[in-house]
Amino acid sequence: MKKIINQPEDLVREALQGMASAHQGLLAVHFDPDFIRRANGPVKGKVALVSGGGSGHEPLHGGYVGPGMLDAAVPGAVFTSPTPDQILAATRAVDGGAGVLHIVKNYTGDVLNFEMAADLAREEGIRVETVVIADDVAVENSLYTAGRRGTGVTVVAEKIAGAAAEQRRPLGAVADLCRRVHDQGRSMGMALTSCTVPQAGRPTFDLPEGEMELGVGIHGEPGRFRLPLRSAAEITAMLAEPILADLPFQAGDPVLAFVNGLGGTPLIELYLVYHELSRICAARGLTVARSLVGTYMTSLEMAGCTLTLVRMDDELVRLWDAPVRTPALRWGI
Amino acid sequence: MKKIINQPEDLVREALQGMASAHQGLLAVHFDPDFIRRANGPVKGKVALVSGGGSGHEPLHGGYVGPGMLDAAVPGAVFTSPTPDQILAATRAVDGGAGVLHIVKNYTGDVLNFEMAADLAREEGIRVETVVIADDVAVENSLYTAGRRGTGVTVVAEKIAGAAAEQRRPLGAVADLCRRVHDQGRSMGMALTSCTVPQAGRPTFDLPEGEMELGVGIHGEPGRFRLPLRSAAEITAMLAEPILADLPFQAGDPVLAFVNGLGGTPLIELYLVYHELSRICAARGLTVARSLVGTYMTSLEMAGCTLTLVRMDDELVRLWDAPVRTPALRWGI
Repeated sequence: MKKIINQPEDLVREALQGMASAHQGLLAVHFDPDFIRRANGPVKGKVALVSGGGSGHEPLHGGYVGPGMLDAAVPGAVFTSPTPDQILAATRAVDGGAGVLHIVKNYTGDVLNFEMAADLAREEGIRVETVVIADDVAVENSLYTAGRRGTGVTVVAEKIAGAAAEQRRPLGAVADLCRRVHDQGRSMGMALTSCTVPQAGRPTFDLPEGEMELGVGIHGEPGRFRLPLRSAAEITAMLAEPILADLPFQAGDPVLAFVNGLGGTPLIELYLVYHELSRICAARGLTVARSLVGTYMTSLEMAGCTLTLVRMDDELVRLWDAPVRTPALRWGI
Repeated sequence: MKKIINQPEDLVREALQGMASAHQGLLAVHFDPDFIRRANGPVKGKVALVSGGGSGHEPLHGGYVGPGMLDAAVPGAVFTSPTPDQILAATRAVDGGAGVLHIVKNYTGDVLNFEMAADLAREEGIRVETVVIADDVAVENSLYTAGRRGTGVTVVAEKIAGAAAEQRRPLGAVADLCRRVHDQGRSMGMALTSCTVPQAGRPTFDLPEGEMELGVGIHGEPGRFRLPLRSAAEITAMLAEPILADLPFQAGDPVLAFVNGLGGTPLIELYLVYHELSRICAARGLTVARSLVGTYMTSLEMAGCTLTLVRMDDELVRLWDAPVRTPALRWGI
């Protein structure tokens, strides 16, 4: 295992300390229990957004905390769900009286622990709504989920729901909007290499030279099938087709096209994939209204990528464009 | 070789096409000769900034084209200098009558080709000034350079000089400011793995399990020495010490601290390195005025990182904070 770390068991906490020093004035990191929140807050009268999950997917979720997006993020150990007490503490810390929206990727542990935390928060009089993200069309059930896994749509949902919360929309409306983004979005991914969980010390799976894994999950879960490495054009088509088949996209639909790197894939390859994806969209008559190309949701140092398409409308585009200031996504402020 | 590409020789051009579609309205890509420029321009009366170099270092330099930073970027083939005719065409395309600043990383081919393009542009009546960036303290001469190599300070110099140009400062003043950033900045890097140039098809060098290369260049050039893999704390100290020894930083100096990933190193490790670096700065009495943590200058999919420290002052901080809108660095607009 080759990593720039100290003791494997200290990685998450030391990285959180690094985030705290790098983003003073924007973020504050709370330890015991661990969560990241905006430096200023809670914002009175604003619905607060809390997300979280296992570490190892950076910048997800801590990199999306800040004005216009999340109010807090709750990191578990690497690829391990955060505990209910972490989630509860974060929920308490950011509630400004207008309630809290939990945005949860669909993994069994995450869903259970967020559910438990939501119940406890409600007992304390905090209103909580939950949206579960399950956008990965690769598999219907997986090693870690009942139903589809939550992947790239999470970033888009957090951005758009965050913008709606800044407009002081009420909890039910923000949650409904988040569900609308979810329902309009689909993703699928592939890997060229495995990743290595620091405390395991060896690759999660073996992927021989010349092979790739299609439909891989962001924890190295098995995908749909393994096959010989193909060209970028073929890979992009193999990821885009199941997405386009699953959601009845129609000619003329405006979409957000999101090409995401899983950690070890360089930006030059992601732009090439985007080039292929934009050709596929054009051939279907889809209008790319907005795009996002980069490394926004990772699986440690895994080489590979995910594609996400979200059907947009004028309101979703306006909310996507609204100012945001987080470590990983920033514009307008 | 595992990469998401079509034909290796088409990668750069296809990625440029992807950048053009992903950033419509912000960037325009010109082919034959190839360069990236702002969609709107040239800006009359503003000094124009042109940078460039071999591809494979994305987001450097195309990701830094846009208001507040570069006017054009000239990409060569992977790890290969752009040609004089590319640089000349970009220079012509962005000159708004106030002259053009060439910001050039110190590699022999880059320096020669930018020099030739500058001479040709001057013959056409375009005023050109050149600043060569040579900030890497690892080696005094290298495989590709006379003198030090140009690395992380390039990003900081392009941002700050770009902000000065937006204020309509004259060519000489923008060039002097760029030199001041250069003179106040130092960098050093390390690698855990090699990278693979697509057209070569195999790793540039071998780095066995358990070993690292200290002082590595961004093209896989040999560094100072190879040694057994150490902890993140030790690695950070081994990179920071030569930087701090080379520039007479003094207690109380405000610095910009920049931890950069070389492509294959995940953000969670970069934040850990930043944590170690901020402790080292604190122990020296240096005040971290601004920070940057992420993947901003790469060597394809190489695992490793570079550290950069730039001594700042109030003016440099104001210019760093000025609005910028590029694919890879954006705030305020």
